Amino acid sequence: MLTFYWARNTCALATHIALEDAGASYESKRLDFSKDEQRSAEYLAINPKGRVPALVTPQGVLTETPALLIYVAQTHPQAKLADLTDPFAFAQLQAFASYLCSTVHVMHAHDPRGARWADEPSSLADMKRKSHGNMRDCFQLIERDLFRGPWALGETYSVIDPYLFTISGWLAGHGVDVAGFPGVGAHFRRMGERDSVRRALAAEAA
Amino acid sequence: MLTFYWARNTCALATHIALEDAGASYESKRLDFSKDEQRSAEYLAINPKGRVPALVTPQGVLTETPALLIYVAQTHPQAKLADLTDPFAFAQLQAFASYLCSTVHVMHAHDPRGARWADEPSSLADMKRKSHGNMRDCFQLIERDLFRGPWALGETYSVIDPYLFTISGWLAGHGVDVAGFPGVGAHFRRMGERDSVRRALAAEAA
Repeated sequence: MLTFYWARNTCALATHIALEDAGASYESKRLDFSKDEQRSAEYLAINPKGRVPALVTPQGVLTETPALLIYVAQTHPQAKLADLTDPFAFAQLQAFASYLCSTVHVMHAHDPRGARWADEPSSLADMKRKSHGNMRDCFQLIERDLFRGPWALGETYSVIDPYLFTISGWLAGHGVDVAGFPGVGAHFRRMGERDSVRRALAAEAA
Repeated sequence: MLTFYWARNTCALATHIALEDAGASYESKRLDFSKDEQRSAEYLAINPKGRVPALVTPQGVLTETPALLIYVAQTHPQAKLADLTDPFAFAQLQAFASYLCSTVHVMHAHDPRGARWADEPSSLADMKRKSHGNMRDCFQLIERDLFRGPWALGETYSVIDPYLFTISGWLAGHGVDVAGFPGVGAHFRRMGERDSVRRALAAEAA
């Protein structure tokens, strides 16, 4: 049995969808960021980073979206969510995940969470302003160089798809229309029609 | 045959060391960031992100440190640089890599490369100031919660070790003494004694 910790409007949605795609058996635990529950002593004992997602497994706690996505795929092989046997194909999957977590997510976070990296109100306003163009630039690169279609990595659905969907969903908040990116825009709509995505979104809205 | 693109004082050092650990056969190509070679048309055709590292393989180009580290490990199994067979152990390795790339590297980059995220000189100065304490906080978390010793993941050396060594090497620039972290400090010294590390450092200094 797995226990999955998440919060609304975070990258935890990617793992949430992947758990649904995998048909995983898990208990869902929502943290309320507006009440700072991610910094409670109880949660910090689970994840000392004070972030989501976290996945409690029979062997211990795991964190970080790219790690959780591969873990879900690897422990639910029947769902065929990642091919770990071909080193090149797996590296392409990993590179996509890594770009999303270390570049795109970080570009986004400078809007709502600039206080991680600077203190002055003028700096936070500056970061916020710049984040919108940065997100547009990142998605131009994704559309042109990374996205293959119809799924992120080509003909086969993988754990990158819920991750890309999750971050594509943040574009509207930056004033960027996902439909302006033909491949990624169609992907966003296609993902929205999947049962796994609907179940995860319904759980997060409940 | 592999072709490895790198630049001095970047996270590419981690992959450089891993290639040496693996006994890989590769051609080394240095980019000079002071001449903006990472933005030349020739290099952007290889890696449109204009970053290092990049690894040209017989099947195509790969980027992103976590992806390259696993690729090197997976294609050189005799070097035993990562265990991909145990999903939990592999997820722990991935989580460590992900924390280094998406949190620690990013904290560091707000010192030399704040212009990625803000425009005003006052914002860049603010980010620079804050980066030093952030790096200290990250390494406190690594020392307390992630680092096992004697190697990053415990008794067995892995591709996380050159990655941790590389980023530990940036602490001095933030005015933080790596020796102040008992486990990570000893790891930094131990890594410096390895032949693979010495070869990679000598190649980068040449």
